[in-house]
Amino acid sequence: MNGDSILNNIRCPEDVKLLPASKLPDLAQEIREFIVEHVAKSGGHLASSLGAVEITLALHRALDLPKDKIIFDVGHQVYAHKILTGRREAFCGLRMCGGISGFPKCAESEYDCFDTGHASTSISAALGMARARQLNGTDETIVAIIGDGALTGGMAYEALNDAGQSKLALIVLLNDNNMSISRNVGALNKHLNRLRSSNRYQAFKRYIVLQLDKTPKGQSIWLRLERFKNRIKYFLLPNVLFEALGFTYLGPIDGHNAQALEQVISHAKSMNRPVIIHAITQKGRGYPPAESNPVKYHGIGPFDLEGGEPVNPSERSNSMAFGDALVFLSQTDRRVVAITAAMKHSTGLAGFERAYPKRFFDVGIAEAHAVTMAAGLACSGYKPVVAIYSSFLQRAYDQILHDVCLQNLPVVFAIDRAGLVGEDGETHQGLYDISYLLGMPNMTIYSPSTQADLERMLAAALECGGPVALRYGRSALPAGERTEEPIDFWRVKRPVGEVNIVATGRMLSHAEAVAKAYGAGLIEAPRIKPMDLAVLDQLKGSKLCAVIEDGISVNGFGAAVAGYLSRYGVGVECFGAPDRPIGQGSIAEQDEMCGISSEQILAGLRHVMEKA
Amino acid sequence: MNGDSILNNIRCPEDVKLLPASKLPDLAQEIREFIVEHVAKSGGHLASSLGAVEITLALHRALDLPKDKIIFDVGHQVYAHKILTGRREAFCGLRMCGGISGFPKCAESEYDCFDTGHASTSISAALGMARARQLNGTDETIVAIIGDGALTGGMAYEALNDAGQSKLALIVLLNDNNMSISRNVGALNKHLNRLRSSNRYQAFKRYIVLQLDKTPKGQSIWLRLERFKNRIKYFLLPNVLFEALGFTYLGPIDGHNAQALEQVISHAKSMNRPVIIHAITQKGRGYPPAESNPVKYHGIGPFDLEGGEPVNPSERSNSMAFGDALVFLSQTDRRVVAITAAMKHSTGLAGFERAYPKRFFDVGIAEAHAVTMAAGLACSGYKPVVAIYSSFLQRAYDQILHDVCLQNLPVVFAIDRAGLVGEDGETHQGLYDISYLLGMPNMTIYSPSTQADLERMLAAALECGGPVALRYGRSALPAGERTEEPIDFWRVKRPVGEVNIVATGRMLSHAEAVAKAYGAGLIEAPRIKPMDLAVLDQLKGSKLCAVIEDGISVNGFGAAVAGYLSRYGVGVECFGAPDRPIGQGSIAEQDEMCGISSEQILAGLRHVMEKA
Repeated sequence: MNGDSILNNIRCPEDVKLLPASKLPDLAQEIREFIVEHVAKSGGHLASSLGAVEITLALHRALDLPKDKIIFDVGHQVYAHKILTGRREAFCGLRMCGGISGFPKCAESEYDCFDTGHASTSISAALGMARARQLNGTDETIVAIIGDGALTGGMAYEALNDAGQSKLALIVLLNDNNMSISRNVGALNKHLNRLRSSNRYQAFKRYIVLQLDKTPKGQSIWLRLERFKNRIKYFLLPNVLFEALGFTYLGPIDGHNAQALEQVISHAKSMNRPVIIHAITQKGRGYPPAESNPVKYHGIGPFDLEGGEPVNPSERSNSMAFGDALVFLSQTDRRVVAITAAMKHSTGLAGFERAYPKRFFDVGIAEAHAVTMAAGLACSGYKPVVAIYSSFLQRAYDQILHDVCLQNLPVVFAIDRAGLVGEDGETHQGLYDISYLLGMPNMTIYSPSTQADLERMLAAALECGGPVALRYGRSALPAGERTEEPIDFWRVKRPVGEVNIVATGRMLSHAEAVAKAYGAGLIEAPRIKPMDLAVLDQLKGSKLCAVIEDGISVNGFGAAVAGYLSRYGVGVECFGAPDRPIGQGSIAEQDEMCGISSEQILAGLRHVMEKA
Repeated sequence: MNGDSILNNIRCPEDVKLLPASKLPDLAQEIREFIVEHVAKSGGHLASSLGAVEITLALHRALDLPKDKIIFDVGHQVYAHKILTGRREAFCGLRMCGGISGFPKCAESEYDCFDTGHASTSISAALGMARARQLNGTDETIVAIIGDGALTGGMAYEALNDAGQSKLALIVLLNDNNMSISRNVGALNKHLNRLRSSNRYQAFKRYIVLQLDKTPKGQSIWLRLERFKNRIKYFLLPNVLFEALGFTYLGPIDGHNAQALEQVISHAKSMNRPVIIHAITQKGRGYPPAESNPVKYHGIGPFDLEGGEPVNPSERSNSMAFGDALVFLSQTDRRVVAITAAMKHSTGLAGFERAYPKRFFDVGIAEAHAVTMAAGLACSGYKPVVAIYSSFLQRAYDQILHDVCLQNLPVVFAIDRAGLVGEDGETHQGLYDISYLLGMPNMTIYSPSTQADLERMLAAALECGGPVALRYGRSALPAGERTEEPIDFWRVKRPVGEVNIVATGRMLSHAEAVAKAYGAGLIEAPRIKPMDLAVLDQLKGSKLCAVIEDGISVNGFGAAVAGYLSRYGVGVECFGAPDRPIGQGSIAEQDEMCGISSEQILAGLRHVMEKA
């Protein structure tokens, strides 16, 4: 970036405000180059952030930050906002241990006002702030930016329904790129499509172009604001869906025209009631590889700036192993169906969809519905496999328990990104699934240590006749050998002695190193629930059992083992994630943060035994 | 009921079909009398079931049961359906241990096809069945009956959005009584209100009356069906909201006119696509005390048939103790606000609303939104108290974890109906909250054994500065004395010995009896998380610690204690709910089912110590 850079002179939103509007396209271009350059090095959520550059500029100009509040739904579109609020230099540490987060974080900046990560929370949070504002008698503007994908999530609708009746001033900026992570689905999306392609939108674009053409270069467009305001009313025709929910609908508007957006936002502010601004954007905007393949560039590892190809082509992921196995097993069992909540690519289901399009259902970002819909299929004789990331499956806790487990229905949960997830940090950690699934009646939980086991567990899960959770992490498990070794029984890998280790999933490799170094017994638990009590009984009379898991240790697998073994006077030491949020970093770094690297476990074990 | 009873001759839906339509009003009347008479004895969900009598009759006539499927949302409106499907005699055991459930249960009858209990699940389940039907190539009709209250739940919208785009034949029968459990809220409700009061509805009612008047007594209305079908098209005007979601809207229609309903349902069947039928009903219909006070008669204990007054006026409930304390504490702290999800009366918040209407928010049946909205208020300097039943709070698992706990925001969760809940059975048990809250970072969990403690814990929670859960059950705790005894420290009630008991909440009274009979030490744990390690350390060197809780024992409080104490060689025995669904009965009976009556715990303790 050379000395003429506009971006170099932006330190805070006030600087963006002082720019002549004519400079905005150049600034947007610089921001895009900056984002692409840094994400190419660090990896990150590229496509969403590229799509929201002008929206961010417009908000920074139309609002009075940090007094006014912007809540970014999901938060992965926040890069431009961070760059413009004093965190530009920190981008070399984006998503790294000790660096800045890829999501909004109140702890980082006064310009971030609500931590997000999961979809569809922004309108609820914004309404809470609007209610606080009313009680305070203050007048800040509150904006929730939400994508069309996140709008398929039920809690967004719950919030719209409540906000609409509240009549409180609240702006919902719909960043509509016709995508969630995959292409967007659902009737609402069709409805938005009709709006997107409406004549009104075309007319609006022509009008804006006309206005800008008429504006002499360098002369502020503000002079024309009054006339513009009157004219814009033409576009404020009611939109049925949002009107029914009590919102005034403004749009659709070109989400890459910062000037036009700024003025619509200002207008929305002046309306002093619930308003939805419908902005049409392009995911991946400005970086051709991302424009043409926004799914690939939604979240991506480091890549080559020129061609856009990943720097480290990944090994065969667990998701791929799962997806391939599912396709294979479905050849001979027509009752297998697959369900995803807007993530068919990243959960490995794209191949299944190609092979069995009629047996594949993408319900949108709607985990709760996905699970109960699966229950409906299961009680009609089908074998639904619901593939959702561990962290997002938290959204369906009640549905798993109430609709699947209480009825003992054969639904298989393919829980991807279980355990520590790396650079996405706190909000995306899959550390809770063992804890919350353990307590559910009728549930079986598998945790493979190799991809070969993953495949066999999936086969077993489809024959189980009740709910089964199959959890595996982000880092690829070793391929393993296709053996006939049972998956329901625990495996004594090293003879039981005074000190023994029980480990599951990817933690087996840590456990092997520790057991060897310490000379301890080693047991692998491929099935976490039910536990293999026959093997646990072999530990009677031993001194210590260390349980290693990549889940929370408060009441996860280790606590369940302790609940059983304590009656025999065996001490149980749980090595898992501690009871606090675990921030971003590589998975190896996060193991260190949790105290579950091989070295730390070995040291911990020695410490405990010295005290004993 | 005398010999002329129509109801006495109804054994199955086929019998209802054979009745001349002119007999339907009499049959409806008999069903209502039957319901009122039995609920007066057993208690139950009266008002909803009275409101859905004609809808049930119409469905039984228009459908071909059990081939066709009816999914009852929530399921508390299912009484007429049960009466008409061979379970009339079983009503003397309604909601009792060993008797029939107050909710749909597949295990009871082939006419029940999906177990429900929580709101807003029916459309998801129905869509799953519709997708199974398409894969099977069969042609059964699938109907989800959902109330206007449950329609405020986000997952209902997720399902509508998915069903609308699927284009599959699916009937959503909206049973609109302008009530959820309390009066309904939200923008959607206002939208429905406009429909309810539309001229179309009035015209429709007049038209139906006219048609029926023209029908000679005894002559079947079926003769006029063809003409009626053509005329009805007049009423099939599109409704914007449901149209936008891909549904055809039929209505509004009088939900107490069984003949008209039957014909609209038949028409909807013939349309072979997603259809919503909007039926207007009156909650409590036909029983004047319930008509005039449907909130009171939503779910009620045994009552006097004549005046409608409860047989056993209840003692001061925990909900009342909570509500009164909240009003008191809010007098001196203007930052306290209260949030409910459609249950202000049963959670004890009605008084708060009267005292501080501007600080009270009823968001509808929308637990997820309620919690994140609270997070928005909390990060704006307020102290939100979210009062939700334990079982329903499961809906907000992710929001508690992701939006409140990760950000360490001061939100207080007043968790009513925690533990065993009695007659509502499996779907309403509050057995999971300890397990799922224990694993959440920054969370404090209180569990009072007296109402005096409950009040003090609420005061402490409001000063805590982070998330706090305060759990209490349905049965009234003893009033207790207002002491200065700390609530954060565990209380040694009987000196620590070889065998000790740790108990919390209402289980303290069981524990006192057991400790006395056995001669064991007794510790009360008013705060479950964080644990009082100083007191636990006093148990080093003891033999056995029995933990008594009314939550699941797999990975609840007891497992957490085991996770700590096992390292000292202390055996920990967990007495809590077993790892299976716990059915209906009185709470005392459910204690027996779980093996946690005083007698059973004492016997269990003796058994363990004999073995040791």
